[in-house]
Amino acid sequence: MTSPPAAGQPSAETVAAYFRELQDRICDALVEVDGGTFDARELRGERGGVARPRVLTDGEVIEKAAVNFSHSRGDSLPLAATERRPELAGRSFEATSVSLIVHPRNPYAPTSHANIRFFIAHPPEGRSPGGTRDEEEEEEGWWFGGGFDLTPYYGFEEDAVHWHRTAAQACAPFGEDLYARYKAACDDYFYLPHRQEMRGVGGLFFDDLNRLERPAELDLFGRCFAFGRSIGDHFLPAYLPILQRRKDLQYGERERGFQLYRRGRYVEFNLVYDRGTRYGLQARARTESILASLPPLAAWRYDYAPEAGSPEARLASDFLVRRDWIPASNPSHPEGT
Amino acid sequence: MTSPPAAGQPSAETVAAYFRELQDRICDALVEVDGGTFDARELRGERGGVARPRVLTDGEVIEKAAVNFSHSRGDSLPLAATERRPELAGRSFEATSVSLIVHPRNPYAPTSHANIRFFIAHPPEGRSPGGTRDEEEEEEGWWFGGGFDLTPYYGFEEDAVHWHRTAAQACAPFGEDLYARYKAACDDYFYLPHRQEMRGVGGLFFDDLNRLERPAELDLFGRCFAFGRSIGDHFLPAYLPILQRRKDLQYGERERGFQLYRRGRYVEFNLVYDRGTRYGLQARARTESILASLPPLAAWRYDYAPEAGSPEARLASDFLVRRDWIPASNPSHPEGT
Repeated sequence: MTSPPAAGQPSAETVAAYFRELQDRICDALVEVDGGTFDARELRGERGGVARPRVLTDGEVIEKAAVNFSHSRGDSLPLAATERRPELAGRSFEATSVSLIVHPRNPYAPTSHANIRFFIAHPPEGRSPGGTRDEEEEEEGWWFGGGFDLTPYYGFEEDAVHWHRTAAQACAPFGEDLYARYKAACDDYFYLPHRQEMRGVGGLFFDDLNRLERPAELDLFGRCFAFGRSIGDHFLPAYLPILQRRKDLQYGERERGFQLYRRGRYVEFNLVYDRGTRYGLQARARTESILASLPPLAAWRYDYAPEAGSPEARLASDFLVRRDWIPASNPSHPEGT
Repeated sequence: MTSPPAAGQPSAETVAAYFRELQDRICDALVEVDGGTFDARELRGERGGVARPRVLTDGEVIEKAAVNFSHSRGDSLPLAATERRPELAGRSFEATSVSLIVHPRNPYAPTSHANIRFFIAHPPEGRSPGGTRDEEEEEEGWWFGGGFDLTPYYGFEEDAVHWHRTAAQACAPFGEDLYARYKAACDDYFYLPHRQEMRGVGGLFFDDLNRLERPAELDLFGRCFAFGRSIGDHFLPAYLPILQRRKDLQYGERERGFQLYRRGRYVEFNLVYDRGTRYGLQARARTESILASLPPLAAWRYDYAPEAGSPEARLASDFLVRRDWIPASNPSHPEGT
């Protein structure tokens, strides 16, 4: 567990304050590895909304990273949100998120992605938002979503195992089965049906989260917010060791070419399937922020298949498949914790 | 007008024979310009279906070209086809098409795209297909669709004018307003809402075509098939002169970089909006054929805007906008015809 959770009623301000701090922390850590600087600006939206897109381009280690924070307010919930919750239709709302992607230069270093988001519908006029009474918990108008996932170009078992162990650690305090459930959801989500292939080695994916059984001493918002923070706080420990040990490996044209080719799959996933990307484009959000996730350079080769038994072939056969990355014994409490 | 049209009843075989010949003709012409060779194979599908994907990669002039022919048969019309024609639900059908894209290497040479397709639903058992009786014309179970469009990276007025004049010539024998109508439909279709930008300078786009007023001496199928052939036959005269005069222009890193950046928009359009691509991916058609349209290499640059007044800026301001490319006087019969 990390810092003590906030108590009290669900609040976008409270969550946004954490997201801002997380954005700073992740950007600082990436700058320390790379030496480059983020293009940082603050954009004002309607009704006091704010966005802080931050993009680092053409760095020594990082070819492109986008670490975006936003906090927006709206008069009326978008259709995407009320389809599953018709009782919230027409309510004003706030949404806040931190969303990031890192495309390293070195083909041996995997691309990583993380997102945490919080959504709250304000109560109809004349009612207080509340947060503890049973009646109101039944129609809680807030939820968290997010997760993180890893996309290698060359597979390393130790990287995938470290990534998943850290994911399991992030989940452990909040429930027995959370890691298994959100790991499976991640495998389901980051899948390209037209390639019959996973996008990467997965990680965690959750949505519509407003119930958790632990920690018992917290209310539902406190538990879910603590879980969201745990996901956010575990991103750097999950990714930095991998980036550090791969960023200086020697590579040549072959590895670079394969990386560009595989990045094409990333483009395919994001533009064809990713809900956040497609919803953002449809909603006419700021296109440059939404598409900041796309790689700086990507290639398509017609009908290419790597030579059998090559490291390139092993990526698809051994890594882009559903696998249990953590040995069955004691999955959520690996050595060293 | 080109070769004499076939009379008689609508037939996928008849259309497919023309499409095969057109594929050969276009591939031969591109090979003559480039010197490279197409990867050609013939793939057999269910119920005697056949596909001939042909891709030329890494040529001297053409960085990637895909010229695909297919003729497929199915037991039951896909939803995409019966939504607008519920009376055809459950019928067996044939579909045949030729679809092509050319990505030249030189940034001054535009990318071009063309597609012609024919769809026919077979009559329910016990009825002959017919093609002339009024009653049956009312529920014609066949139609053509397609068109061609041009996507420059650096805009040249003379190229856009030549392209559109050739498009107008292709339409002229079949009706007064066809060019204007299909030109407008092309502008509507090849548009990226999230960029508020057209994909290119347009051309022609038509769909659901099974009615035409001319030539009066032909039946409806004869007219529509003649129109489809006219579109197919006018692609090379529209494109080759442009490719020829741009393929050897001097360029450097700046132009190459801008070309790769603009190709990103092509990827965005095809994966986010293009109906054929999205339908093909959902229908689990052969992915490598569908995505053969994607450029060999594409780039994304965060929040990039070309310098005001530069040739790169003029592309968006002067070319990727709705424009009448043909002087108003005598649009469909330009000089030389």
